[in-house]
Amino acid sequence: MEKQLQIGILGFGTVGSGVLRILKHHEPKLNQMTGVSLKVKKVLVRDILKNRGTIADGIELTLDADEIVNDPEIDIIVEVMGSIDQAKKYIEKALIAGKHVVTANKDLMALHGNELVALAKENRCDLYYEASVAGGIPILRTIVDSLASDEIQKVFGIVNGTTNFILSKMTNEGKSYDQALKEAQELGFAESDPTNDVDGIDAARKMVILTRLAFGMNVEVDQIETKGIRDLQQEDIEIADKLGYKIKLIGSAIQIKNKVSVDVGPILVPINHPLASVQNENNAIFVVGAAVGETMYYGPGAGELPTANSVVSDVITVAKNIRLGTSGNVFSSYQHETKLARDTEVNNKYYIAIEMQDKTGQFLALTKLFSQFDIGFDQIIQQPLSSDMAKVVIVTHKINKAQQKEMVSALKEVNEMNLLVCFKVMEGK
Amino acid sequence: MEKQLQIGILGFGTVGSGVLRILKHHEPKLNQMTGVSLKVKKVLVRDILKNRGTIADGIELTLDADEIVNDPEIDIIVEVMGSIDQAKKYIEKALIAGKHVVTANKDLMALHGNELVALAKENRCDLYYEASVAGGIPILRTIVDSLASDEIQKVFGIVNGTTNFILSKMTNEGKSYDQALKEAQELGFAESDPTNDVDGIDAARKMVILTRLAFGMNVEVDQIETKGIRDLQQEDIEIADKLGYKIKLIGSAIQIKNKVSVDVGPILVPINHPLASVQNENNAIFVVGAAVGETMYYGPGAGELPTANSVVSDVITVAKNIRLGTSGNVFSSYQHETKLARDTEVNNKYYIAIEMQDKTGQFLALTKLFSQFDIGFDQIIQQPLSSDMAKVVIVTHKINKAQQKEMVSALKEVNEMNLLVCFKVMEGK
Repeated sequence: MEKQLQIGILGFGTVGSGVLRILKHHEPKLNQMTGVSLKVKKVLVRDILKNRGTIADGIELTLDADEIVNDPEIDIIVEVMGSIDQAKKYIEKALIAGKHVVTANKDLMALHGNELVALAKENRCDLYYEASVAGGIPILRTIVDSLASDEIQKVFGIVNGTTNFILSKMTNEGKSYDQALKEAQELGFAESDPTNDVDGIDAARKMVILTRLAFGMNVEVDQIETKGIRDLQQEDIEIADKLGYKIKLIGSAIQIKNKVSVDVGPILVPINHPLASVQNENNAIFVVGAAVGETMYYGPGAGELPTANSVVSDVITVAKNIRLGTSGNVFSSYQHETKLARDTEVNNKYYIAIEMQDKTGQFLALTKLFSQFDIGFDQIIQQPLSSDMAKVVIVTHKINKAQQKEMVSALKEVNEMNLLVCFKVMEGK
Repeated sequence: MEKQLQIGILGFGTVGSGVLRILKHHEPKLNQMTGVSLKVKKVLVRDILKNRGTIADGIELTLDADEIVNDPEIDIIVEVMGSIDQAKKYIEKALIAGKHVVTANKDLMALHGNELVALAKENRCDLYYEASVAGGIPILRTIVDSLASDEIQKVFGIVNGTTNFILSKMTNEGKSYDQALKEAQELGFAESDPTNDVDGIDAARKMVILTRLAFGMNVEVDQIETKGIRDLQQEDIEIADKLGYKIKLIGSAIQIKNKVSVDVGPILVPINHPLASVQNENNAIFVVGAAVGETMYYGPGAGELPTANSVVSDVITVAKNIRLGTSGNVFSSYQHETKLARDTEVNNKYYIAIEMQDKTGQFLALTKLFSQFDIGFDQIIQQPLSSDMAKVVIVTHKINKAQQKEMVSALKEVNEMNLLVCFKVMEGK
């Protein structure tokens, strides 16, 4: 009963010190839950001499990661140092040395997760990464647990807090994209180079991780059709509002006949759908299972304490697995051949905004073009832009992605029409 | 590694057969997750001869629960028979015999949970009951897990699907309470005697369970101020809408200075709050933690498959605990002395609807009455009811419960004024 597990932490930033604090403060509760005592032995730091108060008492600090990953007494490595290449190297060394690993590193797990999961399995080690997606929400654990007795059909939602913050400001306060981005940067929700967030790259990386767990398929980031929010205009938000929708950046992974369709982009969400009311930097993810139906998990997408909390949850699970002798099932060892759905198999309604000359016959030309691809209309709004230009907004019937792509390229060929945006429309409840 | 755990199921209704089906169909996955094989040995039925297809092959059926709870080979009892007294008797026998128990019985756990939890602890047995609150949502597990490293401050939300269905119909389709109730009954969402649901009793029972887990306090059902939706008028829903709110039946447990305040009642929820968009029979529960912040869990509140799924999750946890040697921590053994917050410590805004004579001086009398208890107004709407009567609706500033109660009794003393409803107002985001 008095077994002890020793932990090494790579990184003593805000998340690392949060993890250390939780492990210290909640020691008796954690011992009771796992049946073992959890002790932090060593922490990798950048500066040995920095004053850290009493939190580091009794713990060895080191500048050399190898002293941690090669320490035969250490059972579990917690990687919260960030970066991709360095972190990958240390995690590989740790797994090869038979140590279990908990990481919060989303970029690493999106880009190299597949290799690392295989390496963990090969070495019969655990590799957990709950904090890498939607920081404070136990979404990966929930997906893996529900897979035990259910089949997941869809995973979709708001997985990037920065863009949701910007969209909230544009929607609720009528701000422009640039104003909202600036505010996000001032508040620390967006980085000075916001590319990864606003172009949907961060969301796509999270969808790689979610798709791997929910469907056992390894989709690469560049296989995910990804649109960001840079081109989004205040006007689109206003028109969407008139039509009964909010615009949200949604990552979506859907199973279609043993294949999967994954994409990221701005989507029109019906105003009474729970995702429409997710404000500011929060995340919210729907998981739809054959048995359980629609469930949603909502909470802070990031933040030091929520992230540290998720890391500690993973440490608890790893400790239990060690004692159960069930290590090495690497979160989910559920694997299927990766097959992407064909464009003709993926159906959606679309919101299309077109700028065109406001002259007789233009509208007829437009409807002819749509009917050529067998695309019907649900809703149409036309409004004047200037003396001779008009903006036409169309919500289509359900069409497949192939039709949508053909229509988009045909529109680009027409000189007098300018396609502004083409977004998916989520079906109402 | 080839250890086997044997299971006895009390009840072969829709949930019982769902549990059996999941255990059979997912056997390899479940073995892999728990490190043991899970085998159903006996099931309690009402009718031995009923044709059940191949699902019961290789399983002993019995009419006598004692054959199950006294079987020394059975490790885990799953109680899905419903009823309170019978179920309690069998669960007690099982725990005394050293068997671990999983139950979906909300009424039993609300009324006798405290005794049963103590009995389980005394016998070093597990007692799990995830399916008793919000069927398909892993809310109890989430609360217990987050307690490992966080402190919960509030738990609140929509915990009764029947009333949320009725309120959705009244709000979205303009139906009266009676029409909406009838529809709920026809669709099987409400029972022929709907008292437990519409008077908030079912929600209060769930709050007993949630309060016990989140705060370690044993509040009794009759200590929970409980209001139902019978008195709610279509007009209140319309006025709330004009003020920017939806009316929802909300159960709420809040920690205030080491005490707890628990109540159930219709509340005005700001229209852009995630709870406002929870439609029909769905449930949604907010958990607010000191570290993790606001998280929400949304999904079907009931249903056979979601419930069976939750029961199986509990069986998995119990099996793991047996192997870990961590049985008997009874879901959460977190205990505090039960202390209820005083009325003067609980602050809220209120929505108050009053019917009064439409004559000079009445409004002055009303404002005097409010100022007497130091209650300020946020919003006021007055509308004529008939030639000489008016309806006045007031949203107050934040006041404490003592002020609210004094004001309500003072209003009842005034002959010319009739208090129609007094609901809490949830603060905006």
